[in-house]
Amino acid sequence: TVRTDLSELFAADISVVLKELDGPQAHYVLTQLDTEKGAEVLAEYEPDDRRELLRYFDSGEIARYVNILDSDDAVDLLKEQPIRIREEVIALVEDREQARFILDLLPYEPDTAGGLMQKELVRINVRQTVTECVEEIRRQAQDVEKVYTVYVIDDDETLLGIVSLKDIILAKRGSRIEQVYNQDVIYASTYDPAENVAELMRRYDLDALPVVNVQKRLLGQITIDDVVDVITEQAQEDIAAITGVSEEVEEDDSVWKITRSRLPWLGIGMIGSLMAAKFLGIFEHDLLLMVPALALFIPIIGSTGGNVGIQSSSFMVQILSDKSGISGGELWPRMLKILSVSVLKGLLIAVFVFLVTFLLLAHPLKLAMVVSISLLGVVLLSSFTGTVTPILLDRFGVNPSVASGPFITTANDFLGYSVYFGIADLLYHL
Amino acid sequence: TVRTDLSELFAADISVVLKELDGPQAHYVLTQLDTEKGAEVLAEYEPDDRRELLRYFDSGEIARYVNILDSDDAVDLLKEQPIRIREEVIALVEDREQARFILDLLPYEPDTAGGLMQKELVRINVRQTVTECVEEIRRQAQDVEKVYTVYVIDDDETLLGIVSLKDIILAKRGSRIEQVYNQDVIYASTYDPAENVAELMRRYDLDALPVVNVQKRLLGQITIDDVVDVITEQAQEDIAAITGVSEEVEEDDSVWKITRSRLPWLGIGMIGSLMAAKFLGIFEHDLLLMVPALALFIPIIGSTGGNVGIQSSSFMVQILSDKSGISGGELWPRMLKILSVSVLKGLLIAVFVFLVTFLLLAHPLKLAMVVSISLLGVVLLSSFTGTVTPILLDRFGVNPSVASGPFITTANDFLGYSVYFGIADLLYHL
Ligand SMILES: [Mg+2]
Ligand SMILES: [Mg+2]
Ligand SMILES: [Mg+2]
Ligand SMILES: [Mg+2]
Ligand SMILES: [Mg+2]
Ligand SMILES: [Mg+2]
Ligand SMILES: [Mg+2]
Ligand SMILES: [Mg+2]
Ligand SMILES: [Mg+2]
Ligand SMILES: [Mg+2]
Ligand SMILES: [Mg+2]
Ligand SMILES: [Mg+2]
Ligand SMILES: [Mg+2]
Repeated sequence: TVRTDLSELFAADISVVLKELDGPQAHYVLTQLDTEKGAEVLAEYEPDDRRELLRYFDSGEIARYVNILDSDDAVDLLKEQPIRIREEVIALVEDREQARFILDLLPYEPDTAGGLMQKELVRINVRQTVTECVEEIRRQAQDVEKVYTVYVIDDDETLLGIVSLKDIILAKRGSRIEQVYNQDVIYASTYDPAENVAELMRRYDLDALPVVNVQKRLLGQITIDDVVDVITEQAQEDIAAITGVSEEVEEDDSVWKITRSRLPWLGIGMIGSLMAAKFLGIFEHDLLLMVPALALFIPIIGSTGGNVGIQSSSFMVQILSDKSGISGGELWPRMLKILSVSVLKGLLIAVFVFLVTFLLLAHPLKLAMVVSISLLGVVLLSSFTGTVTPILLDRFGVNPSVASGPFITTANDFLGYSVYFGIADLLYHL
Repeated sequence: TVRTDLSELFAADISVVLKELDGPQAHYVLTQLDTEKGAEVLAEYEPDDRRELLRYFDSGEIARYVNILDSDDAVDLLKEQPIRIREEVIALVEDREQARFILDLLPYEPDTAGGLMQKELVRINVRQTVTECVEEIRRQAQDVEKVYTVYVIDDDETLLGIVSLKDIILAKRGSRIEQVYNQDVIYASTYDPAENVAELMRRYDLDALPVVNVQKRLLGQITIDDVVDVITEQAQEDIAAITGVSEEVEEDDSVWKITRSRLPWLGIGMIGSLMAAKFLGIFEHDLLLMVPALALFIPIIGSTGGNVGIQSSSFMVQILSDKSGISGGELWPRMLKILSVSVLKGLLIAVFVFLVTFLLLAHPLKLAMVVSISLLGVVLLSSFTGTVTPILLDRFGVNPSVASGPFITTANDFLGYSVYFGIADLLYHL
């Protein structure tokens, strides 16, 4: 039967199998599994697929899963539901503590510490003993899927420190928590952005991170598995931004959805290039007729501007994302260094291309000069825009990776053609 | 004094401070810290910086840190050292078990499960009781920085399953391990690539992953903090490959090193564009003189080829990196879908550009036709190369992300110009 075959698999694998079925079939299979396993499977679904699947479930069925999910996953699932279903489900959740957890978590933004945390955790009052702590863990751990650390609090539920399960096992039975706990605790505030949470957990090798409010009251914890997902998604978003895919698409989306996700950026590229065509048209009846060979170097101008811009911006994005707390130096020395790199890069390229065009391709001296001087200008300008754009985007709260995308590339191309024909105009009309 | 100020910081933060000092200063400060903290700080260093710093340490000093580092970090550190120092240090390591751990780990490739694992772990024979297990944990856990799970083995040290610290605390004192352990254990083999390890730990939300040999003998474990670093580095490598930065550079590297890291790709772009110039030269004295306006659309041909190629290849890279075990469908239906997306994308672009050039920019019908037919061809060809190149690279074991980089972009540009002037030649000489 279905039950015996599937239920032996891990939830993550069952969810992959279920995605191959249609809604009613997946609903049937899921209800054949026991509720615990079914809840785990639902937690593994992608938000879009899950919303689609849950359309075949009534509120009572959803409530049975929500009842036993970790509170963070329960909230993620409920936030995808229409408000009416959400309210119905919360009213039907049997475990009233779970319902309270959900209501506590609903207000937080998804990409903040509050939006990542779960309410389930094990905590112990600092005045208790290790023996009492083991009892407390026995009592509380029933509801906590994985116990990473035990949080030590005072009577006001202020976070004082942590004690690991290992320390508890190693401690003498009689010792008091006060004697064994670690006060050097790293924690997040509910409003801290998800990327800072990820950076904290990565830097300090944490498995779990406590989340507190402004009074340092312990509100929840963030577990590393959820942060691993945040890191993976951020990397995918960065790559999507750089490669100009505007909307997250997966392989099994429709042809039209995939196409549509790529049109906005291609459209920007098109409009930019058509504007370039219009712009170059100014020189059509003069410069291009006089020196048709100028056309041959349009590609090198465009691609150099694009490539240099991408390199500068991705370097800057790397610097901006490295939130090491302690700054790596002042702004001006940095800028001077970036400028030095561009000048050096520009000079090397200009000299190389001059030699090739003049000696190897045997073009006239004037043309070789126009091309190489323009390239130096293009490298400097593109480095400048590639450096400054990510900083500005970051200031305005936009993902700076976008600066490596088609928009900036197109702008750089445009800038490049202006420099090229500007310099050509100057030199040929001397 | 230095000791009291710095030693209160976390190791990750001390390492940031030390990077601002020169070698002899950093050596002095590090030796003022206690050995434990010093070892933690060394574990936080970037490989390059660490090799540089350790030049100021003698083998005896290095051995004192290696003695207490986790075996995975100890091996990473030693692999950066010249072979003579490495041998000296291993001979000087006081803890002979640690020396054996290091010799065990040295042979593994860094980007495999064997290269990521540590020897430190807590294991228990399946025939023991929970009470004995707690004693075992007490004994073994001294050497294990963080206890995630206890591995259950038989007399041949074959991995049978796992039991979490939580399960041990929750279990009745008298129960036998046999009754409480979990046989559904996910494990890696020593030769599994690091990216598969990361994917396993991400998919199944693991904190630690046991590593076994071909006889399923338990050899070590991989902890999530090291895998978080693998995921972060892979994402950075992918972005470096896409943006054409060939060598890993950091902000504090020299101007020349930063410049050099960007030259190979820029060089490829240059040579490609100069070849394009040479190629376009064929049409200079005929087509370009006859129809100078053809030059105006060189940018749109180049940038469309580049953008479409990047979109297709990054989509393909995403599919290739999604190693879900269960395949998402057969090859031919996939290819058909990718083809459909390209045709749709190409048609939309061709029609749009035709309308703009003919109606808005008021170019002759023939030119508008040449441009839009060429764009359709460019989109189809670039989609094809963008799809096939990552597959081929992946087959040959090269990071397929490179397919979104300047090399392919340049090749696509080239292909685009050939199509454009080929079609122009055809239509204008009819
Ligand atoms: Mg999960
Ligand atoms: Mg969540
Ligand atoms: Mg619960
Ligand atoms: Mg780390
Ligand atoms: Mg969670
Ligand atoms: Mg989870
Ligand atoms: Mg370009
Ligand atoms: Mg670390
Ligand atoms: Mg040791
Ligand atoms: Mg390592
Ligand atoms: Mg996961
Ligand atoms: Mg480690
Ligand atoms: Mg480590």
